[in-house]
Amino acid sequence: MLGIVNGTTNFILDKMDSTGAGYQEALDEATALGYAEADPTADVEGFDAAAKAAILAGIAFHTRVRLDDVYREGMTEVTAADFASAKEMGCTIKLLAICERAADGESVTARVHPAMIPLTHPLASVRGAYNAVFVESDASGQLMFYGPGAGGAPTASAVLGDLVAVCRNRLSGTTGPGESAYAALRVSPMGEVVTRYHISLDVADKPGVLAQVATVFAEHGVSIDTVRQQGKDGEASLVVVTHRASDAALNGTVEALRKLDTVRGVASIMRVEGE
Amino acid sequence: MLGIVNGTTNFILDKMDSTGAGYQEALDEATALGYAEADPTADVEGFDAAAKAAILAGIAFHTRVRLDDVYREGMTEVTAADFASAKEMGCTIKLLAICERAADGESVTARVHPAMIPLTHPLASVRGAYNAVFVESDASGQLMFYGPGAGGAPTASAVLGDLVAVCRNRLSGTTGPGESAYAALRVSPMGEVVTRYHISLDVADKPGVLAQVATVFAEHGVSIDTVRQQGKDGEASLVVVTHRASDAALNGTVEALRKLDTVRGVASIMRVEGE
Repeated sequence: MLGIVNGTTNFILDKMDSTGAGYQEALDEATALGYAEADPTADVEGFDAAAKAAILAGIAFHTRVRLDDVYREGMTEVTAADFASAKEMGCTIKLLAICERAADGESVTARVHPAMIPLTHPLASVRGAYNAVFVESDASGQLMFYGPGAGGAPTASAVLGDLVAVCRNRLSGTTGPGESAYAALRVSPMGEVVTRYHISLDVADKPGVLAQVATVFAEHGVSIDTVRQQGKDGEASLVVVTHRASDAALNGTVEALRKLDTVRGVASIMRVEGE
Repeated sequence: MLGIVNGTTNFILDKMDSTGAGYQEALDEATALGYAEADPTADVEGFDAAAKAAILAGIAFHTRVRLDDVYREGMTEVTAADFASAKEMGCTIKLLAICERAADGESVTARVHPAMIPLTHPLASVRGAYNAVFVESDASGQLMFYGPGAGGAPTASAVLGDLVAVCRNRLSGTTGPGESAYAALRVSPMGEVVTRYHISLDVADKPGVLAQVATVFAEHGVSIDTVRQQGKDGEASLVVVTHRASDAALNGTVEALRKLDTVRGVASIMRVEGE
């Protein structure tokens, strides 16, 4: 399950994507329009989305997932440069809530972080303050449920709909869907999550740097899909897109990259989802 | 409510859009892949979609809508040229089931026909054999429900889901949603439907033709939004996009256009929806 479950952050990211604005500028506009609160922490740091991810994972997998089980990363460090990189890959950037059941069916993971998704993915066209939950399962294939993620009337409509359902259930002596945790699957830590990564490095523009960097990836068992290098005044920017690797392996790689003399800095690390 | 409710025709139109193929070529591929039946009439002439439109209109408006009440036009006459025109307008073409409640709330309409929709509309990104129902209402805003429109496993999953719901209802002594026709709104004929139109005319390339054509539109109360004229060897093609007008007014206009000496033919008439 991949979800865009926070209207404020989707509005900000959509604004950055469509106008090339930076994070602060887009946040200011969201605040002026009443989409973002005076203290936007709960939204932009992903706390609101993480709470929703815990609820959605519980519904999806009949397993109790606690808020503490959800890995959380906000979107305050997404830059205009990240959007430019995403465009080059035919992607956009969304703050996603991702709940997955492992291929062996024995465990689940839940996480919230910014991610690149292909422009052809149904979630890529969820604009402004809209929300959507995209579900993929063996039997039903790909499903998506889309609607407003903010606003007085849509919120009132949803709450009223729930109240009507409760009244109907009480009248007929039945109950609606409740918490269901019978599957009781193991909730895996973030280190076990497997996905692809888009990594931007600032490196020295001299021979041998690419070999050094590639060696670090290989030593940590992270396979490289594509590399793009661009030089400028003795410095160079190196963009590496990996094949699927675990979060633990990626973290080990980045730690080792930071120790290389020739790597001036890790400009950004972005997961690539929905492919 | 705007719906893409037939997977076969959406596959064909998507193929025409993405490859520039003609209708017959795209249909042949759909047949080869098992998406289209040996006799594709029920799909490509819109009968299947019309039946679904009647059901959806009933659910949406609590009004009995019969199949005979649904205006129906197939998509066999959509051409590669129509897709080229759609692209110039920032649109694509979909076979849509459209159920609307009039602004005064007193009547409803239901219809199935090919239509241009903007590429920014959520339905524009419904590709291949996928289906989606897009709903817009005062309180809830825009909602969309998206999923596979064909295939063994998704169909089995949906049928099984319905059976489980029926079993649950029987066990708890309740019933699921049933036919609801208490609103009993009037079902208006197609002539009263109001929308925008994209009309391609083949005309003589000589002075005064545009004035003649524009006069016919004005005489029938159909207001013109944009006109584009392109000449080629004494012939010219004239593309007119109208403001909102009733189907009856548009039909009167087209009938009068056909009688003009300078109009060699009406190449296509396509409604423009979802703006």
